[in-house]
Amino acid sequence: MPFQFKILHSSKKSRARVGKIITPHGDIDTPGFVAVGTNGTIKGIDNATLDAMGVQLMFCNTYHLLLQPGTKVVKEAGGLHAFINRKKPIITDSGGFQVFSLAYGGVHDELKSRGKKKTDGMVLKITEDGVHFRSYRDGSKFLLTPESSILAQKELGADIIIPFDELPPYHIDKDELAKSLARTHRWEIRSLATHLENPQNQAIYAVIHGGVDEDLRKESCQTLTKYPFDGFAIGGSVGKNKRELEELIRFTTPLLPEDKPVHLLGIGDLPSLAATIPSGIDTFDSSYPTKAARHGLLLTKEGGIKIKQGFFKSHFAPIEADCSCFTCLQYSCAYLHHLLKANELTFYTLATIHNLHFMVKMMQETRKLIFEDQI
Amino acid sequence: MPFQFKILHSSKKSRARVGKIITPHGDIDTPGFVAVGTNGTIKGIDNATLDAMGVQLMFCNTYHLLLQPGTKVVKEAGGLHAFINRKKPIITDSGGFQVFSLAYGGVHDELKSRGKKKTDGMVLKITEDGVHFRSYRDGSKFLLTPESSILAQKELGADIIIPFDELPPYHIDKDELAKSLARTHRWEIRSLATHLENPQNQAIYAVIHGGVDEDLRKESCQTLTKYPFDGFAIGGSVGKNKRELEELIRFTTPLLPEDKPVHLLGIGDLPSLAATIPSGIDTFDSSYPTKAARHGLLLTKEGGIKIKQGFFKSHFAPIEADCSCFTCLQYSCAYLHHLLKANELTFYTLATIHNLHFMVKMMQETRKLIFEDQI
Repeated sequence: MPFQFKILHSSKKSRARVGKIITPHGDIDTPGFVAVGTNGTIKGIDNATLDAMGVQLMFCNTYHLLLQPGTKVVKEAGGLHAFINRKKPIITDSGGFQVFSLAYGGVHDELKSRGKKKTDGMVLKITEDGVHFRSYRDGSKFLLTPESSILAQKELGADIIIPFDELPPYHIDKDELAKSLARTHRWEIRSLATHLENPQNQAIYAVIHGGVDEDLRKESCQTLTKYPFDGFAIGGSVGKNKRELEELIRFTTPLLPEDKPVHLLGIGDLPSLAATIPSGIDTFDSSYPTKAARHGLLLTKEGGIKIKQGFFKSHFAPIEADCSCFTCLQYSCAYLHHLLKANELTFYTLATIHNLHFMVKMMQETRKLIFEDQI
Repeated sequence: MPFQFKILHSSKKSRARVGKIITPHGDIDTPGFVAVGTNGTIKGIDNATLDAMGVQLMFCNTYHLLLQPGTKVVKEAGGLHAFINRKKPIITDSGGFQVFSLAYGGVHDELKSRGKKKTDGMVLKITEDGVHFRSYRDGSKFLLTPESSILAQKELGADIIIPFDELPPYHIDKDELAKSLARTHRWEIRSLATHLENPQNQAIYAVIHGGVDEDLRKESCQTLTKYPFDGFAIGGSVGKNKRELEELIRFTTPLLPEDKPVHLLGIGDLPSLAATIPSGIDTFDSSYPTKAARHGLLLTKEGGIKIKQGFFKSHFAPIEADCSCFTCLQYSCAYLHHLLKANELTFYTLATIHNLHFMVKMMQETRKLIFEDQI
């Protein structure tokens, strides 16, 4: 099936809506949480297991896959779905986020967690053409442009791709931000042109920029909605706290066409989801639930629990009594506490399964509430 | 079912035999490989998955479980099977091996791999009573005696337990070794007495010691076979190479009762299995296949392959074309190569699944060959 977005219900109470994104690899119910599998796997969960858990959309990072194993290898394997054995939809980003994180020092958490900070001087030059940078893996030189990012994403072959954009830092003056925005728009339009030469059954979402500046966000929406993008992602700096984020999203979504899906980039904590779904955000990607799991923070309806706390040493109940995940059906908090204390890899897998299952169920519940006009 | 050992076939070609060990948690086909799950989990595989893979016996370490989470917690959970959610048989050791590894500097690999070498002065005193030592986790003091080891193993509640013994170093003169052996025998008999006060449906295997000295091994067999142990494990220093091991086992097994199972402690590499099965070894435990997996060494019928080698970058076939494991059915060498290069946790799980499956299948094949008198 070619890409399509259907709205099944629009809430009477807010701009929240229940929808369905149809892709060549299956459907994505919205609002839906998108799990982040940077290198082509969720950390600690293989893709067959992930499919079975009902995670409908997986986010992979072009930057990482470009450096390892390289998009040519993935293409040779028959594309990312074949290479990583994922049957369900995949979205890739442009690589811009990671490259600019290196430039502006806000190193992406995924890089941080490798324990190798080789960020100084990693971005060599930013020109109208694109960005020259060095691999964080082996120091080799790369050039990422709107065209090369899209061609890399063509080799990966995800269901949804993202144009190359600039990620300006949060602290930047308006003139600089406006210049950056104009260049981002030129880059996105070049990205779209490259995509349209060979659509390959992929959908492309524009990325709305403009930081926390209302005028610039408005300008970004007005500029990019003129082009035939299949959906819109809200990116760039989306505020320094939840209140700024909430206001920004409330202001931005009415400026986007109602019949296109809206994605919020890099946000997935529960308060932010609750704050932005009423404004009509359809999908969210974030490594929060999986990273929290690896740090021993397990999600429950009553909030996160820190499984390493002494209380859990002899707590023989599952994380949540009514949870139907693989972990809760079979293992107690006491065992999970023990596995984490013993630094066992098995902990990371079992904790990640629970947190992702929690997100899947939570989004099901959210869709139900929107159908009932309660959100 | 109470513990039982049945011999189904004795080879006409060697002392190899096919048997079945019956335990309260199910049967173990022999010769059989015993997977090591030190802290109550195979590294990277949860116990429900392990059960489904057909790994019939799991080895857990009393030393580690004593220090974390403590055997009282495990007892409170209803025993080790309930605590770790394992339905199939478990064997625990006495803790002696790890404690004496600390004393003699031959630090057990499992401790090494934690990257924290706090072994100096960890063994405080060895007396006729037992061993005073400090926890490698937090420095707190422990006393392990034949009685306390068995009582700890009663709290864990494994199907098969092991008496407390002394592990002398490989380089020791005969007088010292003889003294150590005599004490080990006294400790094993005290262990047996403690066990028999409350058998709790557990079986207990004696540990045959004597290093590579034939006289002492003979003495150990003669002493320990007089007592009502349910099986025999061959422990202590079993030689500095495969030839010494092979000779030692060939010499020792005829000195043990034919109708009792014989376990070889801590050995699991393929050449050693091939060398000792013809002498009548029934079970082997070793972390070799799981540790090899984590280091990227994948077992195949043609020998181990190092998946990190450049050759595998674009090798889109599974590890073994005819392997029916979860990993080979779904993932290519190229993807596994990529996951390891990217340091992804998922690699460790998928590699461990393959290597353990390989061991299970290899032992099935071995039993078939013994039935056909080819071994």
